[in-house]
Amino acid sequence: MTNEFNILHPEPLLIVVSGPSGVGKDTVLHMMEERGEYPFHFVVTATTRPIREGEVHGVDYFFVSHDEFAEMIENDELFEYAIVYNDYKGNAKKQVRDALDSGKDVIMRLDVQGAATVKKIVPEAVLIFLTTGSEEELVSRLEARKTETAEGLKLRIATARQELKRAKDFDYVVVNRDDALDKTVDIIEAIIQAEHHRTNPRKVSL
Amino acid sequence: MTNEFNILHPEPLLIVVSGPSGVGKDTVLHMMEERGEYPFHFVVTATTRPIREGEVHGVDYFFVSHDEFAEMIENDELFEYAIVYNDYKGNAKKQVRDALDSGKDVIMRLDVQGAATVKKIVPEAVLIFLTTGSEEELVSRLEARKTETAEGLKLRIATARQELKRAKDFDYVVVNRDDALDKTVDIIEAIIQAEHHRTNPRKVSL
Repeated sequence: MTNEFNILHPEPLLIVVSGPSGVGKDTVLHMMEERGEYPFHFVVTATTRPIREGEVHGVDYFFVSHDEFAEMIENDELFEYAIVYNDYKGNAKKQVRDALDSGKDVIMRLDVQGAATVKKIVPEAVLIFLTTGSEEELVSRLEARKTETAEGLKLRIATARQELKRAKDFDYVVVNRDDALDKTVDIIEAIIQAEHHRTNPRKVSL
Repeated sequence: MTNEFNILHPEPLLIVVSGPSGVGKDTVLHMMEERGEYPFHFVVTATTRPIREGEVHGVDYFFVSHDEFAEMIENDELFEYAIVYNDYKGNAKKQVRDALDSGKDVIMRLDVQGAATVKKIVPEAVLIFLTTGSEEELVSRLEARKTETAEGLKLRIATARQELKRAKDFDYVVVNRDDALDKTVDIIEAIIQAEHHRTNPRKVSL
């Protein structure tokens, strides 16, 4: 076995699945987990907000104290963080590092802003932008949620419209059609498979 | 439907499947055609050698006269050409151009040298390097062919060994294992699918 075959054992990847709210990021990632054809570590967000009934620590979120969160910020141990309704949310680098060390690909679900931040810190990350077939489809999906006030919805739609224009900053774009979730997941898995066969593997250093 | 969705309709691709002799380029492409899951135009080589029994014009080769071939050379209508046992062989740009115009992806099967030439002429081509799991596997496949003299075989093995080192000049590398042809084809189809979802599509101009 000679050296030239080394390129056939590429390093684990950091994959970011992003896109405006309403495109179906959660649904897509749930289906990938359910299929289980392809083993990956899914990054769980850390939060300071109290655990709610039915939630599981380490599955829905890592529930941490304000002190623990402050320490992560101070040690530059977070990719990014945000304050949501007085509570802190953020993704820890350590979790990604540990998963990559174990040889597994790592998938992060991030909003468009968060994806841009991760790409700055880890340029080797593979960024996938999930979108709908049209702007109208996205608007009607957001409206169908009925979890927002009229004003909140208006703001979400305006944000989503702006975010749709950011697709070109990503590596790949995938349309998640209402009636073709399976196809969406096929394409995302194809992208990951293809990335593992690049002759210039994107080796993540963190 | 707004402009930002244009990136979702990428241009047809020019895909080159290459690799040392013995890696199984023909077998892989035959299986892709048989599966028929993915429509593509396969580039047929033009040759001046006489048609043999069982061969079909336009399928196995385009059988052309020496005059026709000379004209293609003069008009710079060939990607590359070679003289094989006093006969000329080459791939015509027009065939690729016509297929791309019809919106279909185009696949070319080329030796490693030919692939490098096409990449020079069409930098947007997607180059896939097919290889075996090890050098030993390649050698034993070449030996199993029994279509060569001992000297011819020696030369082929030496060439193949050198060519294995060229994988890094390609975009992707795929191992075609003896017992996993289906997997090889899966990966090649995944690569093509992923390429169609790049935010920077490789638009071919010819």
